Order: sequence, then C-alpha cells, then structure tokens
Amino acid sequence: MLQDQAFLRIPGPTPIPPSVQHAMTQPMIGHRGREAKELIQKLRPRLKPVFGTEQEIMIVAGSGTAGLEAAVVNSAKPGDEVLVIATGAFGHRFKKICNSYDYQTHVIEVSWGSAADPAEIEEYLRQHPNIKVVFSTFCETSTGVLNPVRQIGEIVHRTSNALFVVDGVSCIGGVESKMDDWGIDVLVTGSQKAMMLPAGLTLIAVSERALRTMKENPQPRFYLDLTTYHDKLLADSTPFTPALSLLFGLNQVLNLMEEEGIDNVVKRHETMKSMTRAACRALGLPLLTLDQDASPTVTAIQPDDFDPEKLRSILKTEFGLSIAGGQQHLKGKIFRIGHMGYSSPADVLQTISLLELGLYKTGKQIELGKGVAAAQTVYTEHENRRN
Amino acid sequence: MLQDQAFLRIPGPTPIPPSVQHAMTQPMIGHRGREAKELIQKLRPRLKPVFGTEQEIMIVAGSGTAGLEAAVVNSAKPGDEVLVIATGAFGHRFKKICNSYDYQTHVIEVSWGSAADPAEIEEYLRQHPNIKVVFSTFCETSTGVLNPVRQIGEIVHRTSNALFVVDGVSCIGGVESKMDDWGIDVLVTGSQKAMMLPAGLTLIAVSERALRTMKENPQPRFYLDLTTYHDKLLADSTPFTPALSLLFGLNQVLNLMEEEGIDNVVKRHETMKSMTRAACRALGLPLLTLDQDASPTVTAIQPDDFDPEKLRSILKTEFGLSIAGGQQHLKGKIFRIGHMGYSSPADVLQTISLLELGLYKTGKQIELGKGVAAAQTVYTEHENRRN
Repeated sequence: MLQDQAFLRIPGPTPIPPSVQHAMTQPMIGHRGREAKELIQKLRPRLKPVFGTEQEIMIVAGSGTAGLEAAVVNSAKPGDEVLVIATGAFGHRFKKICNSYDYQTHVIEVSWGSAADPAEIEEYLRQHPNIKVVFSTFCETSTGVLNPVRQIGEIVHRTSNALFVVDGVSCIGGVESKMDDWGIDVLVTGSQKAMMLPAGLTLIAVSERALRTMKENPQPRFYLDLTTYHDKLLADSTPFTPALSLLFGLNQVLNLMEEEGIDNVVKRHETMKSMTRAACRALGLPLLTLDQDASPTVTAIQPDDFDPEKLRSILKTEFGLSIAGGQQHLKGKIFRIGHMGYSSPADVLQTISLLELGLYKTGKQIELGKGVAAAQTVYTEHENRRN
Repeated sequence: MLQDQAFLRIPGPTPIPPSVQHAMTQPMIGHRGREAKELIQKLRPRLKPVFGTEQEIMIVAGSGTAGLEAAVVNSAKPGDEVLVIATGAFGHRFKKICNSYDYQTHVIEVSWGSAADPAEIEEYLRQHPNIKVVFSTFCETSTGVLNPVRQIGEIVHRTSNALFVVDGVSCIGGVESKMDDWGIDVLVTGSQKAMMLPAGLTLIAVSERALRTMKENPQPRFYLDLTTYHDKLLADSTPFTPALSLLFGLNQVLNLMEEEGIDNVVKRHETMKSMTRAACRALGLPLLTLDQDASPTVTAIQPDDFDPEKLRSILKTEFGLSIAGGQQHLKGKIFRIGHMGYSSPADVLQTISLLELGLYKTGKQIELGKGVAAAQTVYTEHENRRN
C-alpha cells in the first residue's frame, strides 16, 4: 500500500482539514492578552448557530467525558433523583458518572440499535415526579442511533420540571440542532467529531434556567464549575488556561462551516448517511438501525455471514482505511463507518469502493461496484432535490 | 514594527518549537488503534526522567488546574485535614480547590516573593499531627519563586505520614526534578510551560503509596479519577479520548529534550535565570526574589521608578515583545519575564536588549547595552564552567 496514506472513517476522532491544521500552528500567544480576548470574542457568537441557541457556549479544555461530567455535577444536586436514558455505551457513560456521585440514578435501558421511545419516557416521568434532571444521548456513537431529542425535550418539559441534558458529542456540527426551540437545557459536544478538530475541547451550552440551577448548586466542583466559565466568558476570557491551539483551529472550523452554510453542512451529512445506507442495502449488509433511528454521522452494520474484525483488518492493512468495530457486547459483531466532519460524498464513495474490495477479499459474494452505484444514485437524487 | 513577528516571553504559554508544530499536524489517527497504543507506549518511559521518577505519569486532557484538582480529589478523603503552603497565586489556587470540597484546609501564608520556610512547615506539622496531605507549589509563577520542595519533602516524611503533593506546572521540564528521591507523592505539570506545547495536557506522576491511597479514596470523581488513568496506562491506553495532537507534539518534545540531554536542559534554564538576573542588576532593576529563592523559569522585577504597565505596553507595541505583569495584589507593581521551554540564551539576550530600549523610552536613566553585557558575561562564565 502507498506509504503515508490513511483514511480515517471511524466515528471520531475524525480527519482535520488542512486549513485547520495550518491555523493551529500559528505562533503561540499569551492567554490573557488582547489577541486571546479577541479570539474568544470572535468565537462566542459563531458557536451559537451550530448549537441552535442564543445562550453562551462554554469552552473547556478536556475530553468529551469532561463535558458530560460537567453537565452532571452542575445540573444535579447531591441527593437528587436523576434519569438516564441509555441507548448504548455513551448512555452508560452518563450512568457511570451519575453513579460516581451521590444521586439517585434511574435508568431507562433501550436495546442497542434502537432509539429511545418518547412515550416510555413520558410514562416513566409521570411515575417518578421527583426526577430533577433527564440525561439523554443525541447520537449514540456505539450504535449509530440518533435519538429524538426534540420529542424527548417536549415531553420532559410537559411532564416535569426536570432539566434536560443532552450529549451531542458525536453529532453537533453535523446535524440540525435547535437547542432553544427543543427545550434542551444543557448541550455538550467534543472537538474531535463533527467539529473537525483534534480531541481536547469540550463545548457546553447552558439554558438560562439551567444556569440559575447551577449557580445555586452546592455540589462540590472546581475545574468543571460551569458558572465560573460563564462569568469569565462574558468578559471574553476563561477561568483556566485555554487550549489555545485548538481555539485557533476552532476559529477556522467556523470559517469553513460559515462558507459552506450550516444548513448545507447538515444536508451534506444527511446525504452521506443515505449514500452509506443505500450502499449497504445494495451489498446485502444488514444495517443495525432502522432508517428512522439512523444518525447522519455514523452507520453501524451487523453482518451475518462474515467476521467484521477480519474485514476491518483487511481494509486497514491493504488500504490504510480505518473503520470502527463494536463496543462492549457488540464487539466482534458489528462494524461502524464514520461519515462526519471533514468528510464528503466523494469520501463516502471511496470508502464504499474499498469496502467492496474488502468484502470481496473476505469471500463474501458481492457484485463489485453495486454499492458505489447505489450511493451515486442517492447522491444525484439529493442533488436534484436541492436544485 | 515588522508584521507577523512576536516574541512571547511570559511565564507560559510559551513558544512552540517548529518541529513540534509540525509533529502536531500529522494526520489524525484512531484513538483506540495500534498507532495510538504505540505512541503512548513510546511516551511512558521517556516522561519518567523529566519528573525524576520510576512511577507512571498519567496524561490527562485539560488545563494545569485540572491536574491540580486531580491531585487534590484523589489524595484527600472527605473530612481530611490538609495543609496548603501558599507562596503566591498558584498556592491560593490549591487553597480554592480544597475549599470547594469537604476538607479541613490549613494554610501557611508566605509573603509573595519569598520561598516557603521548611522550619516553619516542620513546626506546623508537629502541631497538627492529623494533616493527611501537604500541598506545595514548586515554581510559583506569580512571583518567580522556586520553593525548596526537596527539603519540604524530607520534612513532611520525617514529621508526618502525610502525602506530599507538588504543583510543578511552571517548571517541570526546565528544572532538576527528583520526585522519587525527594519524596514527592504526586507531581503535576502542564503542557504549555517548560514542556514546549500548547495548553491542553496535564501530566501527573503518582508514587506507589499515593496510588494505594487513591484506590481506597471514596471522594466522588470521574473524569479526574487517576486510578482509572493508571489502569489504562499500564495497557498503553487512556480511559477517555486523549488529546492526540498534543501527544504527537509531546513525542517530539521528548525527542528534543533527549537530543539536548535533560541535564543540559536544566543547565540552560539555570544560565537563562542567571543572565536575566545579572542584566536586571546591571540596569538597576530591583528583583522581587532573593537569588536563593529564584526560579530558573521566570524572573519577577519590582521597579521603584517607573510604571511596569507602561514598559510592557511599549515593548508589545514597538517590538511585539510580550512580558507578563503582576497578578492580584502585585498587579501594576511588578513585571515578569519568562525564560523557559523553547527559549535560549540567545533569546534572553534579545529580550534584554529590547527591555533596555523599552526602559530608555519610559524615560528611565540607563546605560544602553549594560544589561546585555552583564548577561553575556554570565553566559561565558557558565560556558567556561561547563568546559
């Protein structure tokens, strides 16, 4: 295989655009000087349309999990009843975080590959009127499910006074997000997925009512105290040294998103999802999720006639193509293709063409080119629809 | 002034070496694949001599303060008596973190600009035999003091069973560090100081006995639970998505340190300190700290006949040279010159030559070139001593 060539098609970390790489290598600056202040001032309003909010988006140095923990320890008081809607590995992460603290944690377990059912949540909230915070994953990375957070938000507010906290790590920047309209109180994302950056930043938007709760919350916390980030952000600053090189990159990411138009970014991801799913169907690859539950950023396939680990190994060794395996009990049973961030329909076509060769080499009976053709057809249909 | 030229001589963030910038822009990789594992495997043994330990160094995505909080919440149990030795703004940060949790926090306040007095600490520990953890800053960035952590460590272990936790954020990688020999139980640093990287990583070394305490510590924590980082590190992995671009950079930082030799890195910082202090004396600039208390990484000057903010403004505007002001009650009263990480005697000479021009423009009566000559003399003396 051609040396020094690699195709990263896992559901994050994702490839970094060259102009973003370049932006991140600008000479370092002081974190309390005019340039840093101006940079944060420039970022603040431009993050809002990505989240679909008028509220401030806090910028914290850390992994996505730091953002999830910040959401938990700022929203819930010790002793609170909280509800975690778990549709996969990242729903379970919310559960583990809650279990590390003094909360009464309820969990609705949803079978992996399915989306949460709003009616079940409504019923649960009616039966447990003391729940103070509801946690849901938006895109469940481990299964490629996009949960109906709009409907869940509507139900949470209709049936309770709970805060509604959403993990958008593997989709914000790639899917439609209307945080304010949908009644999301806390929305978290990470830098290394649809935001096209290396890992190391977590971005957290907070509603006014959630901020009021956070200001009165006695839960001990320091580095992850979002109220201090909020106070400093209003002065275009941060409480602790910001990850400046990632902020340089974030500025260029927002340039790219604005040039394309955020609506077009969302449509591009929809197209990539539909292309990938059509190709899988054409190749006889069973999809883990229903169309109505499928995320625009990642697609999971559950083959019944070959070992997905063997396929992954061939693709990696022969072409430098990385796709993801399954997590926890789906390990060895599924594979996942990421199509988010710095990823285009052209990349999807390449991925599918290599996937076909990989399938051929595992011994699976397929018609070469058939998946690509199906994806091409979807592409032209989406193109026509837009024009 | 020449456009696009800037000299960052604050005590962190510090300039990034070009080869480190380059390393950080390598194409993104999967965080759970072979390359990431090999990278972490390569980093682990090579961090040890920088800290002066045989123990593992945990790599956490976050600011230095995340590392300090990790040190606190892993070392101290709820209800514990702890002692903070506060010699400046970053000693106070330890205090603030401790005050956010359920600890009985004792504080020894040391006047800003002086180092901690080991005899006073010994006396304090004898009077308070229930103290379980002692927190000290190594280099106090706000004053340019290097605290005698070797002597403090010796005293902590002689007079108590407390863990000894050290904030080495603004000096590790630039000063001699013998964590194991000096009895340091937890040693923390950040990426954006002498480690020559952008902010966003905190590195935390933990002694065996501290690790045992951490494993039994019921203090609630999740993202900052160092026992999970330790478990994963032994398998060349991390519990949460690592800040991979910074790890690419860290690998190259270690290449640079190994090429120079860590002993030589330490000597270079000693030389830069002595050059800076000699120049200040030659120019009649009062140093905030005594020679015996001075840090090799940052020097603070407390002028009595001009406004340091005016000097800083001239240097920034005319030459693009950033030096730091004072923090908290020293704001407007001192200025600080950083000389750490990607900084050489040649850079110190340039900084002093510009400082002289700046002083001249503030109206201070100085003999141009006199500070540079004093620094040059120190340089040649140090050179001769080494040969």
